[in-house]
Amino acid sequence: MSEIRHNVDKELVLASGRAHPELAAEVAKELGTDLLPLNAYDFANGEIYVRSDESVRGKDVFLLQSYPAPLNNWLMEQLIMIDSMKRASARRITVVAPFYPYARQDKKGRGREPISARLVADLFKTAGADRVISCDLHTAQIQGFFDGPVDHLFGFPLLADYIKSKVDVNEVTVVSPDTGRVRVAEQWADRLGGAPLAFVHKSRDLTVPNQAESKTVVGQVEGRTAILIDDMIDTGGTIAGAVRVLKEAGAKDVIIAATHAVFSDPAAQRLAECGAREVVVTNTLPIPEEKRFENLTVLSIAPTIARAISEVFHDGSVTNLFDGRA
Amino acid sequence: MSEIRHNVDKELVLASGRAHPELAAEVAKELGTDLLPLNAYDFANGEIYVRSDESVRGKDVFLLQSYPAPLNNWLMEQLIMIDSMKRASARRITVVAPFYPYARQDKKGRGREPISARLVADLFKTAGADRVISCDLHTAQIQGFFDGPVDHLFGFPLLADYIKSKVDVNEVTVVSPDTGRVRVAEQWADRLGGAPLAFVHKSRDLTVPNQAESKTVVGQVEGRTAILIDDMIDTGGTIAGAVRVLKEAGAKDVIIAATHAVFSDPAAQRLAECGAREVVVTNTLPIPEEKRFENLTVLSIAPTIARAISEVFHDGSVTNLFDGRA
Amino acid sequence: MSEIRHNVDKELVLASGRAHPELAAEVAKELGTDLLPLNAYDFANGEIYVRSDESVRGKDVFLLQSYPAPLNNWLMEQLIMIDSMKRASARRITVVAPFYPYARQDKKGRGREPISARLVADLFKTAGADRVISCDLHTAQIQGFFDGPVDHLFGFPLLADYIKSKVDVNEVTVVSPDTGRVRVAEQWADRLGGAPLAFVHKSRDLTVPNQAESKTVVGQVEGRTAILIDDMIDTGGTIAGAVRVLKEAGAKDVIIAATHAVFSDPAAQRLAECGAREVVVTNTLPIPEEKRFENLTVLSIAPTIARAISEVFHDGSVTNLFDGRA
Amino acid sequence: MSEIRHNVDKELVLASGRAHPELAAEVAKELGTDLLPLNAYDFANGEIYVRSDESVRGKDVFLLQSYPAPLNNWLMEQLIMIDSMKRASARRITVVAPFYPYARQDKKGRGREPISARLVADLFKTAGADRVISCDLHTAQIQGFFDGPVDHLFGFPLLADYIKSKVDVNEVTVVSPDTGRVRVAEQWADRLGGAPLAFVHKSRDLTVPNQAESKTVVGQVEGRTAILIDDMIDTGGTIAGAVRVLKEAGAKDVIIAATHAVFSDPAAQRLAECGAREVVVTNTLPIPEEKRFENLTVLSIAPTIARAISEVFHDGSVTNLFDGRA
Amino acid sequence: MSEIRHNVDKELVLASGRAHPELAAEVAKELGTDLLPLNAYDFANGEIYVRSDESVRGKDVFLLQSYPAPLNNWLMEQLIMIDSMKRASARRITVVAPFYPYARQDKKGRGREPISARLVADLFKTAGADRVISCDLHTAQIQGFFDGPVDHLFGFPLLADYIKSKVDVNEVTVVSPDTGRVRVAEQWADRLGGAPLAFVHKSRDLTVPNQAESKTVVGQVEGRTAILIDDMIDTGGTIAGAVRVLKEAGAKDVIIAATHAVFSDPAAQRLAECGAREVVVTNTLPIPEEKRFENLTVLSIAPTIARAISEVFHDGSVTNLFDGRA
Amino acid sequence: MSEIRHNVDKELVLASGRAHPELAAEVAKELGTDLLPLNAYDFANGEIYVRSDESVRGKDVFLLQSYPAPLNNWLMEQLIMIDSMKRASARRITVVAPFYPYARQDKKGRGREPISARLVADLFKTAGADRVISCDLHTAQIQGFFDGPVDHLFGFPLLADYIKSKVDVNEVTVVSPDTGRVRVAEQWADRLGGAPLAFVHKSRDLTVPNQAESKTVVGQVEGRTAILIDDMIDTGGTIAGAVRVLKEAGAKDVIIAATHAVFSDPAAQRLAECGAREVVVTNTLPIPEEKRFENLTVLSIAPTIARAISEVFHDGSVTNLFDGRA
Repeated sequence: MSEIRHNVDKELVLASGRAHPELAAEVAKELGTDLLPLNAYDFANGEIYVRSDESVRGKDVFLLQSYPAPLNNWLMEQLIMIDSMKRASARRITVVAPFYPYARQDKKGRGREPISARLVADLFKTAGADRVISCDLHTAQIQGFFDGPVDHLFGFPLLADYIKSKVDVNEVTVVSPDTGRVRVAEQWADRLGGAPLAFVHKSRDLTVPNQAESKTVVGQVEGRTAILIDDMIDTGGTIAGAVRVLKEAGAKDVIIAATHAVFSDPAAQRLAECGAREVVVTNTLPIPEEKRFENLTVLSIAPTIARAISEVFHDGSVTNLFDGRA
Repeated sequence: MSEIRHNVDKELVLASGRAHPELAAEVAKELGTDLLPLNAYDFANGEIYVRSDESVRGKDVFLLQSYPAPLNNWLMEQLIMIDSMKRASARRITVVAPFYPYARQDKKGRGREPISARLVADLFKTAGADRVISCDLHTAQIQGFFDGPVDHLFGFPLLADYIKSKVDVNEVTVVSPDTGRVRVAEQWADRLGGAPLAFVHKSRDLTVPNQAESKTVVGQVEGRTAILIDDMIDTGGTIAGAVRVLKEAGAKDVIIAATHAVFSDPAAQRLAECGAREVVVTNTLPIPEEKRFENLTVLSIAPTIARAISEVFHDGSVTNLFDGRA
Repeated sequence: MSEIRHNVDKELVLASGRAHPELAAEVAKELGTDLLPLNAYDFANGEIYVRSDESVRGKDVFLLQSYPAPLNNWLMEQLIMIDSMKRASARRITVVAPFYPYARQDKKGRGREPISARLVADLFKTAGADRVISCDLHTAQIQGFFDGPVDHLFGFPLLADYIKSKVDVNEVTVVSPDTGRVRVAEQWADRLGGAPLAFVHKSRDLTVPNQAESKTVVGQVEGRTAILIDDMIDTGGTIAGAVRVLKEAGAKDVIIAATHAVFSDPAAQRLAECGAREVVVTNTLPIPEEKRFENLTVLSIAPTIARAISEVFHDGSVTNLFDGRA
Repeated sequence: MSEIRHNVDKELVLASGRAHPELAAEVAKELGTDLLPLNAYDFANGEIYVRSDESVRGKDVFLLQSYPAPLNNWLMEQLIMIDSMKRASARRITVVAPFYPYARQDKKGRGREPISARLVADLFKTAGADRVISCDLHTAQIQGFFDGPVDHLFGFPLLADYIKSKVDVNEVTVVSPDTGRVRVAEQWADRLGGAPLAFVHKSRDLTVPNQAESKTVVGQVEGRTAILIDDMIDTGGTIAGAVRVLKEAGAKDVIIAATHAVFSDPAAQRLAECGAREVVVTNTLPIPEEKRFENLTVLSIAPTIARAISEVFHDGSVTNLFDGRA
Repeated sequence: MSEIRHNVDKELVLASGRAHPELAAEVAKELGTDLLPLNAYDFANGEIYVRSDESVRGKDVFLLQSYPAPLNNWLMEQLIMIDSMKRASARRITVVAPFYPYARQDKKGRGREPISARLVADLFKTAGADRVISCDLHTAQIQGFFDGPVDHLFGFPLLADYIKSKVDVNEVTVVSPDTGRVRVAEQWADRLGGAPLAFVHKSRDLTVPNQAESKTVVGQVEGRTAILIDDMIDTGGTIAGAVRVLKEAGAKDVIIAATHAVFSDPAAQRLAECGAREVVVTNTLPIPEEKRFENLTVLSIAPTIARAISEVFHDGSVTNLFDGRA
Repeated sequence: MSEIRHNVDKELVLASGRAHPELAAEVAKELGTDLLPLNAYDFANGEIYVRSDESVRGKDVFLLQSYPAPLNNWLMEQLIMIDSMKRASARRITVVAPFYPYARQDKKGRGREPISARLVADLFKTAGADRVISCDLHTAQIQGFFDGPVDHLFGFPLLADYIKSKVDVNEVTVVSPDTGRVRVAEQWADRLGGAPLAFVHKSRDLTVPNQAESKTVVGQVEGRTAILIDDMIDTGGTIAGAVRVLKEAGAKDVIIAATHAVFSDPAAQRLAECGAREVVVTNTLPIPEEKRFENLTVLSIAPTIARAISEVFHDGSVTNLFDGRA
């Protein structure tokens, strides 16, 4: 048999949905490549159309999408992008979702609730995704919702290192805004060299019998700089309330840090006025000009994402890069 | 072994998304039941939450959703409704989508296009749907996209019978607005007792060599009432253009008939002003007051849907009801 | 760790079922390779046995099969070929089915009908096929029946270009033999430089009230050369009838063109005697000597298939080759 | 909520492919029901069409098919029957295949062979089958090929009991025609009250060094009635050869018994002339008049199948009925 | 067609693996039924054999298994039980795993770790399980690992109510033994009427710069009764260490409460000697006599499980029974 | 677009579970590589933890596990190893299970039995295995239980060739210890140059009417060396019994040969004392010192496995190496 052979090269393709073109451009620049030219638009009734202007046959495709409002629109766009790449014979399709949509609906808190975070994983899989890259999942268990490799990146070292450069870590207490994120606060504390922990929650005052519940701080914050952390800030109500409680409890200063700046109204106003010294976030989600305020600092997640994509493409170890956690 | 037995009764549950409550209410009334009380709302960032207020364990659940803009929102809502019902142990879940979203993207017209209509079928299946009920699919092949039973209902007999009551069928020609729906026009013609057919398309005038292409009518419409049919009217551009061409070709009158009134802007204005005698549609999609105009007639699809649900529930034959086509 | 590495070359393997060895040989020759030696035979009771005489481990395997009668036999042969290649560790398996079997059963025209075209797609998938290459699908929606990439090739440009070389395109009308293929006729018309369209269907004569239905032509064919097109010719009844109607309507000449020459009896006789000037088809299906007649022209689809296989293998763009449609 | 409830009755439906209508009629009669009226025919090019004339919505459907030549045709017919029932909303679909097609290709005897028996199980599943009923599988491991319940019926007790009524079991030896069915011969021997075993195979004569191999009997048959058993008789070559060897080894008489009378040419002639006293089979496959001969006895498998269907339908125990083996 | 109908009754079957027969007997007694007689034993090489002595065709089967050591053995036994029931035509199979195995490996804490809790869910599904009932999952997200309904029962109300009967809730602080279970501690606090919270973790003493880290209590426990809670107690090291820290921090008394008494060595000794006033657990896992100690209280989970099974079987609402959380 | 390309090299990784480290080391040595450093241990309650110390992203991973007691433990370890490799982005995962666990439960011998060998295949697949390599499967049909390529290696040529070097093949009879392995005995006989066959089974003595059944030999063994073969020796009861029967029947000598030395108690004692001249096995399973006895010979299967891995990795033909049977 006269053989037909050819050498196999892998080729990386980075494409982006329309939700956050700035982030996509930054990631492409970090990678030293151009974005795949993608023809994406809405039909009059809202149905989305996507088509690549170039062949992706046999390519290793990374599909970046961000999830600001209208979130369901961008989710459907990503699913259609995946479908089009699958049917165009892409060799492998990686969903790059720095902010994982519906991450908070990760369990049945009550009977008859959906588990939408699992549903999203199944939708990605059904459309044709082979793997997922995401940052600071609301709970790490979401990795197990996807039937395939998930590279879980962390934005908090970026935030923590920034904060280390701004404050004396001997004077900080890391504070979880509720009882559910104390473990994450502990990871922060480790990064900050073993800082003490505290959390805010609603309880009765022990010293006054039969009193009504109110928000209190558990842990020592008096005279210290409270680093109030969370994975995301949505409307900012809980976080802003926590700042007030921390101040009442004697905290010298409060710095808010979160990876995902969802910033649904009236988050920007609340954060600007809550009394925090600084609010530090990343750009996993676009932050339009009107939602920016004076003491807001936005760090770029693009280098982190680009390095992960590069390692995945070159079959390197993501774990080595990101503190053994990815 | 002391046996634990109990008799199995089937119980029908009808629930509705938030896209078109009026239709859901009509269908429920036709069935003689109440809608399942469903707690559905949007979080601040657009994520949707759904939870039934009553147990659906072991129930035969029908989930009605309509697909006006913002279409992707309502699609995600339906998927989350399905997921919540599956996890709440519904016995069987039927998607009732009178208008099937993304039906027009049913093939790769060009390379690298998605086949979103198949994707939607797979998303329904993945979320947990056992069967689908839909009306006047853009192409009948979409039935084959879903891996399970699809009951395909027809709105056109409703429209055709209405038109028969308004015009002399001996004077009508059924007209397809393009080359793709001549087969459907033929079904209409049969329903109207063997009326002649015509279609509109872009071509050169045979009598004038080398002339540019323009829209022309193929078939006889002079002096006749043209019934201009389509499965859906989106922006109304093609349809309104066809009315003009038909009038130029000597049609006495034009009546427009379509099942799905998508009515994206500026459809209402175009239809109101295009010169058609009447525009007849059904309420598979909500038509807000501002999109209604004088010569618009809206027929209710609710009895058709209610009968189909009833037959599916009682294991009757949907085929018998709907002209052997369902 | 002492590494064991080796460089990955891709190797193309082309194998063929027993239905149409001439086409397979032509495709192999176009590709500049030999066919995989395949040991395929029937057991006494009709069960089929298939085994490759050479290793296919890690190869990129293309399995060509044609679908003349006995069609179900060849379908089962293809499924068994796929299974044997999957279990023999082929790297990727592509079904090459120039004529897609059961393509006409692509929807439930009536209740309780099967959707056999979807079933065939699922059988290919279950046996182990990764992708499908086919020509002139009966309806393009069949692409959506397969859960994976489908490369949809077109034979009609081949046919149309041949016809352009034979007739004056200014004198032709492209005719669909029924209402269902007017869209395809339009694609032909575009290829022929904007020729006018017509179609044949059964209707009442408008000028004679209450007359019985008969076949008539909608569109202008008088004095023109009618190019009567279809995707396939099975028994030839509809096509031969259409020729007669076109002649009665004053067509100067009729040329029949179709991709798939199914030619079930008595197609050959009908076509030979129907009065058409020429019948042009391709060799997606074998045409035995006894079914050939004087004015039959058979064009080879082999170069088209070979180019598609080559592009798929080399990760090129099939779209570019075939008018942006594959 | 006003409830819509109705009581659930199960309803059995028995339908049959066109391969063996006599067996289907017998089974229906045993069950006291009529066969589902099924519209099944071939298109001119061999594609099969199937449609039920009655609703099967919610029914418990049993689809009986036999597998004589042309076997692949009947297999495709059964797959299409399953697909049509699935899409017509049957509640449960049971494949009744008394003879399991491709049962002999149940392993890779050599590299690169298909495992067609597993493929068939997967095709049934993909088309929509929920369970399988079959008789005397070539190897019992085939049960494990189907992902769901398989009721494995046995025809050999029927055959063995018939033989017990004809011969003195103290004078019989049960003989396997090759080394692969000695275990089955042992089951026969148990049924016949502990009869001795023998098998035929190719070997050297121990007493003559370096002699060529020839067929010999291992075990005692001299002066005894050899019951030569097999699951199926295809061309009859092995069996007829074994009769000759048994006679040469001094067997007084040979009775051949097999469940599946495949009887590919020249089986009938070989069996008629091989010298066996009687050939006993069942009607799992149709035996046309021209393949019947004088000393052939055909026992009906219909009561066995009918009882199994009835037990499956009524949720009884198939195990109890059939010697604890089903 | 003469109909064959019969009325459908559902029948509940409860079967148990060999890991914890006492619990199974208690649940059966609560339900008022007997356990399915199951023939389960080990082959000499450790392979497990399971077979039901009675027909389960069409039954609603609940398969209870507990997971003490040797845990992998009991897991394989449950998988084989499921497989045997599936192949024996059970109508529905529910895994009842009061203690969910591998629940702690629910995420990739570091790169290249397995997510064994998801794997277990997939194994249950693959073997044939339709649903899962479990108690106090290590993290609630595990519900989302199973592709189907999960009824999540809670043992902590049982424990909390017992504790309420023993101590003055105004004097208690609920304590999480680490940062990961503060949310669960909050649920306990709610159940106990709004008790204050605390947690133990490793940190630096704020008052002594540069000191090494040590375990400390965050929250007020001085002079109060600490209710030290966890979902499971394995070797007891963390819990026993926490008791010591709490005592040092001035707690008046410590009561340990956990649902799952894994009690791997040397848990019993540690708990007996750690200084806690009482250790309260349930019997989701068997506690052999030699692991019981004086101040250990074991509450029975059997009524909770029996009520859930009964509601699942009767299509009632598990949510209503268990505080709206199941 | 600035391209990011890189050349694809394949890299082989061999990892081993903890069941049989000696075999893994031998295979690695044969391959000329080192074993992947794997961190595997048991938690106190028996849950297994596995994590690779090196990146396996994009690697071709072979996971070797043996299955001595505690067999279920090693099976779960292999499943967890597969899951961890899948989630760590291994390119392809091959299960290397020289002894296939639960191979004997390969059919429903009686109603309601599990088919655990199929279950095991499905568990491997679910965890993420792409292919399986195994030796001397109990029945070759098990190949069909796995949905993917299975390379079936044979240990018997190794054993047979050893025996050929020890005895005069003209004096041997190959003996199956029961009726189920006569076919395998025939394969041995072919390898030994056409040796005669015999088998042992329970039957009545033909010469003494109405006598009770006892074990007898069918076939000639008097004065010959009986090669008593089996795929595995578990407790050794059947084999030791067969030796006795063979001696009684006049066999000059008995040599026992089996691939898998399960050697459950009291196999070692039985074999040592049964009177066989030699017992020859391979090391697919570890044989601890206390189970070894004087006339036991253990041949290494490592070269066979190493060659198969190498061929699979290099896309060579396993069939060529192993007599056309792999």
